[in-house]
Amino acid sequence: MPVNPYLTFRVATLEDVPTILALLADDSTSGSQHGEYGEAHRAAFEAIDADPGNELIVAELDGEVVGTMQLTYIPGISRGGALRMQIEAVRIASGLRGGGLGGQMLRWAVERGRTRGCALVQLTTNKARKDAHRFYDSLGFVASHEGYKLALS
Amino acid sequence: MPVNPYLTFRVATLEDVPTILALLADDSTSGSQHGEYGEAHRAAFEAIDADPGNELIVAELDGEVVGTMQLTYIPGISRGGALRMQIEAVRIASGLRGGGLGGQMLRWAVERGRTRGCALVQLTTNKARKDAHRFYDSLGFVASHEGYKLALS
Repeated sequence: MPVNPYLTFRVATLEDVPTILALLADDSTSGSQHGEYGEAHRAAFEAIDADPGNELIVAELDGEVVGTMQLTYIPGISRGGALRMQIEAVRIASGLRGGGLGGQMLRWAVERGRTRGCALVQLTTNKARKDAHRFYDSLGFVASHEGYKLALS
Repeated sequence: MPVNPYLTFRVATLEDVPTILALLADDSTSGSQHGEYGEAHRAAFEAIDADPGNELIVAELDGEVVGTMQLTYIPGISRGGALRMQIEAVRIASGLRGGGLGGQMLRWAVERGRTRGCALVQLTTNKARKDAHRFYDSLGFVASHEGYKLALS
């Protein structure tokens, strides 16, 4: 699988949040849901940043943020008391999709989960995202579960 | 929908963990995955109990634990900086299934999420659990997503 040696990953800072929000908005499936940058996004960033169980990650290429994802580490009684990693809000800048950056970002996430002792990595993706399904299939993920959502607001 | 006035809910203690594990094991889809009660389960309980973003819940009927679920509160940048509740490891004692206790437990969870300010409740359930799909459909959940898993161990 292709590896871009100039792609780097780091934990996001508050200054990255407008760019992360722009990446989330640049999406035909859910792009309109995320709102204009404001106090609620800053508060969410502070909550993530203060929580050792959550990491907001950005991918950088030539000093520019080109990707993002959020990692959540969830302890549980099931599967032998296993820690699981959950990945949410995965995006690569639209002009750079299909070039392997997403695979590199996901493989980096899986390795980070392994290093932290996770026994399982999980994520959900909208059923309309057929390209994403092929992408996660190619990375060895198994679509074994139905992903249910209930909006409260 | 039926309501059993004797069904109560509370945060689990360490003493509940063997019973929770027995509920998880009493399941034809994943029952064999959870292991014999031991140090890893106790450590997982301590991690959950110490984390304000996680709650391990038990349902009691006449002083007996008859159900369990884990609630995780995940802050995020998406959806306007929304907090989401995730529900994992939902079980009702096998002899009591189909009587409405699970619906009562899930509605309680949704209300707890609403009280904590969650904009979304989410969960995944194995595609083999057809009864569970009808159950979540009946509670208003929408199976909009594919649930992907990658086992690391």
